[in-house]
Amino acid sequence: MAHDLTLRIDSARYWHTVMRSGEIGPGKAGGLRRLALTDADKEMRDLFVTWCTEAGCTVTIDRVGNIFARRPGVDDHVPPVVIGSHLDTQFAAGKYDGIVGVLAGLEILRTLDDGRVRTRRPLEVVCWTNEEGARFTPPMVASGAFANVFDVDWVLALRDDDGKGFGAELARIGYAGKEAVGGRPLDAYFELHIEQGPILEREHVPVGVVVGGYAVRGMHVDMRGETAHAGPTPMDRRRNALIGASMLAVAVNDVGWKYHATEGKATVPRIVAWPNKAGILAEYAQLTCDVRHADPAVADAMWADVQAAMPECARRANVDMAIAGEWKFGSERFDPGCLRLVREAADALGIRHRDILSQAGHDAYYISRVAPTALIFTPCRDGISHNEAEHADVDDTVPGVNVLLHAVLARANRP
Amino acid sequence: MAHDLTLRIDSARYWHTVMRSGEIGPGKAGGLRRLALTDADKEMRDLFVTWCTEAGCTVTIDRVGNIFARRPGVDDHVPPVVIGSHLDTQFAAGKYDGIVGVLAGLEILRTLDDGRVRTRRPLEVVCWTNEEGARFTPPMVASGAFANVFDVDWVLALRDDDGKGFGAELARIGYAGKEAVGGRPLDAYFELHIEQGPILEREHVPVGVVVGGYAVRGMHVDMRGETAHAGPTPMDRRRNALIGASMLAVAVNDVGWKYHATEGKATVPRIVAWPNKAGILAEYAQLTCDVRHADPAVADAMWADVQAAMPECARRANVDMAIAGEWKFGSERFDPGCLRLVREAADALGIRHRDILSQAGHDAYYISRVAPTALIFTPCRDGISHNEAEHADVDDTVPGVNVLLHAVLARANRP
Repeated sequence: MAHDLTLRIDSARYWHTVMRSGEIGPGKAGGLRRLALTDADKEMRDLFVTWCTEAGCTVTIDRVGNIFARRPGVDDHVPPVVIGSHLDTQFAAGKYDGIVGVLAGLEILRTLDDGRVRTRRPLEVVCWTNEEGARFTPPMVASGAFANVFDVDWVLALRDDDGKGFGAELARIGYAGKEAVGGRPLDAYFELHIEQGPILEREHVPVGVVVGGYAVRGMHVDMRGETAHAGPTPMDRRRNALIGASMLAVAVNDVGWKYHATEGKATVPRIVAWPNKAGILAEYAQLTCDVRHADPAVADAMWADVQAAMPECARRANVDMAIAGEWKFGSERFDPGCLRLVREAADALGIRHRDILSQAGHDAYYISRVAPTALIFTPCRDGISHNEAEHADVDDTVPGVNVLLHAVLARANRP
Repeated sequence: MAHDLTLRIDSARYWHTVMRSGEIGPGKAGGLRRLALTDADKEMRDLFVTWCTEAGCTVTIDRVGNIFARRPGVDDHVPPVVIGSHLDTQFAAGKYDGIVGVLAGLEILRTLDDGRVRTRRPLEVVCWTNEEGARFTPPMVASGAFANVFDVDWVLALRDDDGKGFGAELARIGYAGKEAVGGRPLDAYFELHIEQGPILEREHVPVGVVVGGYAVRGMHVDMRGETAHAGPTPMDRRRNALIGASMLAVAVNDVGWKYHATEGKATVPRIVAWPNKAGILAEYAQLTCDVRHADPAVADAMWADVQAAMPECARRANVDMAIAGEWKFGSERFDPGCLRLVREAADALGIRHRDILSQAGHDAYYISRVAPTALIFTPCRDGISHNEAEHADVDDTVPGVNVLLHAVLARANRP
């Protein structure tokens, strides 16, 4: 690496920004509840924009609310190297998921300013909108729009469970930007994220070089039955959609256990039913589920098991079942050149690292479809995430940010 | 029977009121969606009050919104004979459940006026509030308050799923009356209701003399797990409350099938979960369930089966389960004297009748705890109810109303 290898981020300054973010949108148990496009999200975005502006960046917002903070390059007309993640959270979340990645990008720009370091290529820090999908399903919808996976108008038309629109809420909080979504080349994209799993902590390795993801296959399943009186209707005339959904939920969970030995997972995070009231059988229910496995072929087999269970559940519950939507991600493999820069930076700094697979969804997946991409993991305590007890330690996180700094410098300065 | 046995209701006039009610609060498939204390409920109540006032009745409203329309007796200081049911409906309901009973009472008063028939005791027609429990759980809450089963302030503090209060909504629609709830003697209570089961139609018997109910045992069960990421969290570290709820739902349904041969039923009409969002395991879920059987001892055995399934489901899903509320009804037996009057009236009119058990909840259960009570069933097509396809035929219903007329006359005029 040709650049100054003594450069390090300011750990205290970095962690101060993480802790300051941790005050915005408090949860009920010490964590965060900062759903996309809420007042808390606006407050965090405003603070982030202020920080970026104070760091001398030019801030632009695109039509789906993605925020880009740009630091010019010596050669400012070539595609930028981009660092980013997300600032929105789940309903019950920690202070680190996504946040440590966006603020690592900010800290890197500040560090370069302090050292009066210029880069050949411009740098950008990005905050992607609604990564979690907690308020507007599906997740990673704005990075997906950037990567042409989703249509911008379709994204703006999404509604939350209260019927509020993505576009309307974006405008309400003042982040309906004018910039086109995507459609411009990125030299590379780097994301740093907590692992959300126990491996790095267990092995005392501070940096995970994410070579790819667990293959994820997900779907919404619609169940259609018939309303009837909860009292007189004989069991053999019932078509309770909620029973169909429950049977399929148990079947999905069983598939997870079947593949548990090879770390397969199957999840039912959500069931809705209608009318879902005392005294009446449900005529409609929808179940959301997914399966995940490191080996895409095994994920496909798990998926086939879930689909094979559907007719039997439908028959036993005497309801109709139909797939209402499917999605796939995690089979992407990240860019070997960018990953090599991460490993080289870690080696140069004397920081232990290992290759790892991601089990969660990340904006990096979609961006990897349009730009060379690398994803770096840092440890999180007990692998706990999407829980207010999520915890990342400053000393476990900073090594990853320094590795990110030097990988980005190497990429941005390459000939 | 000492009174004029040639008296008959005006079938066309009666059915006109049923059809007029059937226009208020339309559903999406030809039936009704007239939830308690909604604008539609107010419109129906206003019309009912107008009809009663035009029939010369004095209308009073009690603090939980029960409407009483009174026709004086010759001896007006003795307790009244009361006829009633409810005008609210389920989310997906027909035009007959409850409604044919209230309007039968109105038609009987009109018939007596036409014939210039006076009764020794006063008569009252009552519309009980929120019988269905579709908007404010539990069901039969206002007749229950009348019978001292529920505290009035507790009823007024109930909230719907949108957080709106029973008392506030009652005031909003103008039916927060000033009369005390209950606390006065009734000479007798008669209710006419569609069967909500297939027996009368199948046997071509127009009148069911309800001797009692199926024993109902119901509960809400709280499940407590832990939020976690739907991706990395290993199966053996998951505490997904939604999986616990689904397992218990399947177990409850299995209990229903176990007792199907003796017409036992077990129902899960409702599951709620939190956060219930993509990407995160649920930390909380609540399941509502009940079992029903003609034999209270068997209902108790079914109940024991459900409770026995709970620890196993809790263990398999790795969640905590606790009963959050229980209820029982249906073991009441109606008044032999009032039932005898119903059978005698049917015999006198040459109308076939049979004894029958009720499988659904009715206001008559709670009122039977404070007054001699009879419940009369009329046929409904295919036994379908709590469905917009619910249907009752005028020719199948009018015989029951005439039987009700003469049973009420006999009771009101007895020495």
